[in-house]
Order: sequence, then structure tokens, then C-alpha cells
Amino acid sequence: MTRTFDIAVIGATGSVGETLVQLLEEREFPVANLHLVASGESAGRSLSYKGKNLRVRDLETFDFASVRLVFLAAGSKVTQKYAAQAAAAGCAVIDLASGLPAAQAPRVIPEVNPEALASLAAPYVLTSPSAPGIALAAVLAALPGSVSIRRVTVTACLAVSSRGREGVSELARQTAELLNGRAFEPQLFDRQMAFNLLAQVEQTDSAGHAGLERQVADELKELLGLPELQAAVTCIQVPVFFGDSLSVSLQAESAVDLKQVYAALDAAAALELVGLDDYPTAVGDAVGQDVVYVGRVRGGLADPAELNLWITSDNVRKGAALNAVQLAELLIKHYL
Amino acid sequence: MTRTFDIAVIGATGSVGETLVQLLEEREFPVANLHLVASGESAGRSLSYKGKNLRVRDLETFDFASVRLVFLAAGSKVTQKYAAQAAAAGCAVIDLASGLPAAQAPRVIPEVNPEALASLAAPYVLTSPSAPGIALAAVLAALPGSVSIRRVTVTACLAVSSRGREGVSELARQTAELLNGRAFEPQLFDRQMAFNLLAQVEQTDSAGHAGLERQVADELKELLGLPELQAAVTCIQVPVFFGDSLSVSLQAESAVDLKQVYAALDAAAALELVGLDDYPTAVGDAVGQDVVYVGRVRGGLADPAELNLWITSDNVRKGAALNAVQLAELLIKHYL
Repeated sequence: MTRTFDIAVIGATGSVGETLVQLLEEREFPVANLHLVASGESAGRSLSYKGKNLRVRDLETFDFASVRLVFLAAGSKVTQKYAAQAAAAGCAVIDLASGLPAAQAPRVIPEVNPEALASLAAPYVLTSPSAPGIALAAVLAALPGSVSIRRVTVTACLAVSSRGREGVSELARQTAELLNGRAFEPQLFDRQMAFNLLAQVEQTDSAGHAGLERQVADELKELLGLPELQAAVTCIQVPVFFGDSLSVSLQAESAVDLKQVYAALDAAAALELVGLDDYPTAVGDAVGQDVVYVGRVRGGLADPAELNLWITSDNVRKGAALNAVQLAELLIKHYL
Repeated sequence: MTRTFDIAVIGATGSVGETLVQLLEEREFPVANLHLVASGESAGRSLSYKGKNLRVRDLETFDFASVRLVFLAAGSKVTQKYAAQAAAAGCAVIDLASGLPAAQAPRVIPEVNPEALASLAAPYVLTSPSAPGIALAAVLAALPGSVSIRRVTVTACLAVSSRGREGVSELARQTAELLNGRAFEPQLFDRQMAFNLLAQVEQTDSAGHAGLERQVADELKELLGLPELQAAVTCIQVPVFFGDSLSVSLQAESAVDLKQVYAALDAAAALELVGLDDYPTAVGDAVGQDVVYVGRVRGGLADPAELNLWITSDNVRKGAALNAVQLAELLIKHYL
């Protein structure tokens, strides 16, 4: 008989939370009772799970002792406020908001660094990395051992759904206003997002880097086990509803064997390699899929140690909800 | 008394050609007679210049001997077919379509490599480089001498107007269809362009590089006088009507002094530097402007010899028509 678990999803009404609930059902996660939880304004709504309507509970009064496993998908501030409380109540915790220091909550992608789980001790607290970090690490980890990465330069083009439902509706609203020739005041984004690219995704620090840019660089070092990796990361916001796209150029220690690269990427179960006669896009390929797409695989124009890639991934699914559920599957298999 | 010149604009009905005519008027170029020329289907239309309507002539029957200076703005095939004929008729030629080998038609940006004109001999044939090449070179050339560039990695996000008027109307059409929930067959672009990023701008060669990607790398080497420069270039098509955006990471030979970089970029007449508390965008800043915008100027996360930049530029104006008119101004000043 399969053991089942009482589970809580904090942030259940957000787009990641909702996808998470959907994936728990799709993947037949051994749920005993599912508790959907959100903060004040969203509490009281209902969401569907296995054909039943579940009422969303209020986070402020939620009793973590009633569950065994908690997904934190309501932003880093909520994680910082409630993670310790959940762990103290005996819950295993999976944070999707990167609200905790890496030392306290290791970042894990099952296909990339499952070995990070080997040294895990109770309370079991894990971080599911950022969406661009997951997409990048999934591809770079699948490169053949002969490619020793020295430097990676990435421009991560983030869909507006990285800002949640509000990002999606604001892009739709701005686009409709513009097509109808009406003036509008931008909301959520600091300026016109429709038919425009925004060069940064949040306020930058005094050195000019956004928090997410530093985070992706740190995630790559940790996930790939490459503490000396040089990473240049630029995160921009693009007028795409769902699906991140990443333009990647990497420098290896020595000449890259492209045939080996194609073979290795093609063999990786978590990836879909698109050949030279085609290329993947967010809308046409990645959205709704569990795999990360990689294409435009090519060497340097002049440098044999250079490798260029284009990566697209569903930022809400593989970039967040799916990875978290995969981590939960590993936790219940080995620890709970 | 100012000398005046008989001028022909080939491709006058395209978006670059039309902007070119507008700039000849705005900049009071010493035009005697202006001949607007286009291929079959566009000939016979009228365009306005200095308050008069000029009839567009048919390229096939146009007599190049009737003019002194020719702008070729009708694509590389037209350039290849007509450049020799124009030069043989005694015309100076400025090609905006990069249809000629660099040895035959040096690539010049007035602010970057005016010295390339010093060795020019009749017939005077010049190339105005690609839009991303112009924007990049304008910024990189303005860096202080202390920054010795070893490698530049760029993701060039091209507006749909890089595909002419058809690109603009196709993005508008696709967007309207999607917002109205109607299915559509993509035209011009090989798949959905609205709310999507296309990872390549044309068919790639057997090594996976697009012609424009090779061209931008070659342009940078020639314009900056750096034959050994390593350049990794990815050109993508984005759902923006006007204005290219470039995400750039460069590696210098030694540590970059950021204060010197800010000062040098700030002092460059052809640039507008946007400080760390803000960033430039295509729609909000670059479009309609003669200068190239640069922002998000920052060092590496860990590498002191790294420099990161975000560049936006009006691809039709500074990236094509304006640079060509500036070249013509130099030609008439020194040669014609």
C-alpha cells in the first residue's frame, strides 16, 4: 500500500501555485489531504483538485503541524516569514521563491544535482531555483564531460508571467490599448511593456546588477559544482506571456567537439534538442512542456572553444512548479 | 554659393528610403534634383520632399548618368545588380544593404572610422553597415583607450521593421488576431511573431550562423580596427515595431575602470548615456533619435576585466538612413 502525505501549497492562487496543484494531480502524487493556502485577499476562493473544489485557507491562521510537506510559492517575503515556522512544526519545506540562504536550503534540480540530497538532514528544506537558473543548469549539466565550462554569458529574456498573473494581464491590457490607439498609464512594469523590451527586471544594486542576475550566477555555480565559473547574466523582460528564452554563449577550457555536444544534448531525458534546420520558441515549443528546449547549437565564428545555444523553457511549469514537485517526489522517496 | 548635387534614392518607397528622403530635407542636404527610384510595383507612386510631390521612377529604366550620388537602399540583390552600373556612370555610391565585398566598398561610420575615407579613390563606393553593427560600433568605439577589447558577446534583439514595412504590418496583424482569439497563418516570419521571440533572423549556414551574425562580427573588426577581435553574435527577432536592443558583454585585456567608461560614454556626441538609476528602451528613448542610447553599464559579477552594456538604437534612422546621409555629407565635403 502506498503511503500518502498531507500537503500544503502556500500561494495556491498564483500561477505557479495553481500549476503546482495541477501537477500534483497529473503526476499522481500520493496526497492524503491537500491544503491550499494563500494570504488574506485570496483566501476563501475555491480551486479544483481531482474534481473537487477545495477552499483556499488563510495563511495567517494556517496550522503547519497539520501537514507533512509544504510548498512555499508566495514570494520570498512569505518564505522568510513562514519557512522556520513550517520546519519547526515538522514539515519538509520546498521553497520556490529563493527566500532562504543556500546554506540553509540547498538548491536542487533532480536531473542536475540529485547528489545534493544525500547529505540532507531534518528538517528537510530545499530550494527550487529560479526559472532561468533551472533552464540553464538543465542544459549545461547535460553537456559532455569533455566540455569544461570556464565562462557563461547569458541574456535571459523573461516572459511577463514571471511577474505572475498581473504581468500577463498588464501586457494584454497595454497591447489592446495601443492597438486601439489609446494612451495608457503603465502599471506593474515601470514603463511600456507592450512592443518593447525592458532592460532590467527589478531595481539594481549599487554595482548595477539585479538580484536575479546575481542569483542565477550563484545558482549555476552551486548546481553545476563549479565555484570558479565566470558568469555574466543579464535578465530582461520581454513582451511574451509564457516561456523564457535564453541566449547563451559559453567558453570552454579547450576546443568543443560539436558532435559530442549534439549527442549528449540529444540523449538527455530532460531536454529536447532542435536541429540546425529549425529552432525552438517559447510559444511554439516550450509552453506546457516538461522538457527544456535547446537549439541554435553552434560553435564560435572563430573560437573553437566557444559554444552558443538558445534555450526556451516554460517558466511556470519546468521553471518552477514541476521542479518543485520533482523535488517533493525525491523527498518522499528517500526521507519522509 | 553652395554647390548642389543631383541625387538618387533607390528603394525610396521602403521605410529606410523614406526616412532617408526625410533626413535629406531635415539636414538641408545640398540637393539640386532628387530622383526617387524603386522597382516595378512601387514606381509611379508619389512621395513628398520639401512640400512637393515627387513621382517615383522605375529602377529598370533609370539613367544613373543623370545623378552624381546614389543611395542604394533596396536590398543586397539590387545593390549587386546596379552598383557597378552606377559607379560606371560616374556616381558616388552609398550602399545601405551590404551587398558589396568590404574590399570594394569600405564600411564606414563617421563617428567611428572616418579615417577609412582618407584612402578613398574614385569611383567612391561606401557601405553603411548593418543597424546592429552601427549601434555596437558607435558604443564600443567610444570606450576609453584603456579598455582593450578582447572579446564581445552580443545578443541583438531586432525590431520587426528590420524586415521593412511588411514586418511592421505583420506583427500588428498577428497581434490583433491573437487578441481577438482568431487563428492565423503566419506570413513573412516563419512562425508566430506576436508575443514570441524568434531565435534567428534568416536561414543559417551549415555551421549554424546567420549571414547577419557573421556580418556584424566582420563589421566590428573592420570598424574598430581589431582584426583579432573574438565576437559571438546572436541575432533574434523580437515583437517590437521600431528600435533594436543589444545585450552586450565584453572582455577586456585588463581590469576595466568603470569611472573612465562612464566619463567616455557620457562625453561621446553620438551617444546618450543612461545612468544606473534608469535604463534606455527602444520605444521610450531610441526611436526617432539620432543618437545611440547606452545603459546598464556595469562590470562583471566577479571578473574585473568584464564590461556589460545595454544598447538601444533606432534601426531605421541611426541604424541605416542617418548614417548613410552622414556618409554622403562627408563625401561631398571631401571628394565630390
